[in-house]
Amino acid sequence: MRRPGPTVRTRVVEHLDGGLERRREDRLVGEEPLELRLAWPGAAARRVWVTMRTPGHDFELAAGWVRHEGLVGDDPGSVVGVGYCTDAALNEEERYNVVTVTLAAPPLRDPGHRHQAASAGSSACGVCGSDSLADALAVSSGRRWPGPLPTPEVVRGLPDTMRGAQQVFDRTGGAHAAALTTADGEVLVVREDVGRHNAVDKVTGARLLAGLSPAEACLVVSGRAGFELVQKAVAAGIGSLVAVGAPTSLSVRLATEHGLALYAFTRPDRVVAYVG
Amino acid sequence: MRRPGPTVRTRVVEHLDGGLERRREDRLVGEEPLELRLAWPGAAARRVWVTMRTPGHDFELAAGWVRHEGLVGDDPGSVVGVGYCTDAALNEEERYNVVTVTLAAPPLRDPGHRHQAASAGSSACGVCGSDSLADALAVSSGRRWPGPLPTPEVVRGLPDTMRGAQQVFDRTGGAHAAALTTADGEVLVVREDVGRHNAVDKVTGARLLAGLSPAEACLVVSGRAGFELVQKAVAAGIGSLVAVGAPTSLSVRLATEHGLALYAFTRPDRVVAYVG
Repeated sequence: MRRPGPTVRTRVVEHLDGGLERRREDRLVGEEPLELRLAWPGAAARRVWVTMRTPGHDFELAAGWVRHEGLVGDDPGSVVGVGYCTDAALNEEERYNVVTVTLAAPPLRDPGHRHQAASAGSSACGVCGSDSLADALAVSSGRRWPGPLPTPEVVRGLPDTMRGAQQVFDRTGGAHAAALTTADGEVLVVREDVGRHNAVDKVTGARLLAGLSPAEACLVVSGRAGFELVQKAVAAGIGSLVAVGAPTSLSVRLATEHGLALYAFTRPDRVVAYVG
Repeated sequence: MRRPGPTVRTRVVEHLDGGLERRREDRLVGEEPLELRLAWPGAAARRVWVTMRTPGHDFELAAGWVRHEGLVGDDPGSVVGVGYCTDAALNEEERYNVVTVTLAAPPLRDPGHRHQAASAGSSACGVCGSDSLADALAVSSGRRWPGPLPTPEVVRGLPDTMRGAQQVFDRTGGAHAAALTTADGEVLVVREDVGRHNAVDKVTGARLLAGLSPAEACLVVSGRAGFELVQKAVAAGIGSLVAVGAPTSLSVRLATEHGLALYAFTRPDRVVAYVG
């Protein structure tokens, strides 16, 4: 039986170091499209999202996305099933690139709220405009994290701790990572993906599928802290976001509004607190 | 009159370097949503895309996206107008976050082809599935670049050359860049954005709005070379893609299929040719 595509692929490439040209085998991070379908009692499965992702932990990616979009709440029982598509109309490759999430009840909000682009002829200028900008900023907010937060000393060590678990990055140099940790800096789960948003979805999904809450003290990300990553942290009820890269104007605004502690440019010897 | 949001914003933050805590003013890269609407003779403007972007060069972003999506072809006259929305129903902030592109003729393909997520109740499982995965991979291919390509020596120097023009990155550490260059390494245009895809759209759009072809010898990007960046390079008819970061399995496959030279992990003293 064919399985989902490989997380890492190999290819012969040329290394060009000045006069020296060397052919050798190189490893590439896997990237394939994934279509997510949503079903619930009395409703046939429907497509709600398509993304490029690194194959592996696909069910976690799907479950985490559903949680971050606010389609389900805190109850781990909200997702009753996740599976590859059994649709006979799909070929083998497509089948492992389609995941269906089955909910216990209808979603808490319209699953197309953010991703509905008007197709030709469907919407006039005006109403849809303000709707879509508002939707783009619509954040599903979880309960604010009530527990302790990591100290700046703990924060500064988190990227290096996560780095030790980044196996796909070690092999390809092309994958982002996300980790969920306690306030003491204990790593609970690490996931990697070619897309940094996907890595965060996978971390939350891993917790949900294990029957655990994704609300924890700290989310660590290997890249920058843009709006969408803050949005996911707020939706999951996480207490602090620690980024190796830079934040943006909108991510700082959103973190401030929702009481999410936000650290960026995190290094072993220094870090900048944007929302403290 | 209010103008589009700032490209760079300031904020007071805390630098935590061990025992020392210093409050100081920090610069953040601007990030705001942009809605793109498309109009053509006999058709009212309709929403086709929403993205987070760094304000600035918004018209270029819109024109470049339209070209990369294959909605218009090589003729610079295909886009007859680009403007902020004059819709009275939008408030001042929203107005500068909505751009309408007016085409001379109906688009060459359905503008919603890639971004149509099924809304509740609209599509059953099955047909839409293979459609959407095929759509996600549907690449609009420009004419293959007929001119000379940069030598490996030129390629290795391109990121540093581009780096000298990255003003937003210098001030914020949070912006990606893209540049279009000749085979000799002459930089034709550089643009920055919080989203690396947007930076590439802006580069192509800058050329289109200047009445020039975006098809050139080389596109340089400050980050990784994922599927979508290769897709944009192929659509614009560019000859080679030079990335500072890693490629992916799908980007190498797509570049191979379309004859796009692909360099990654580019440094002054070395580079890896994935498709040469």
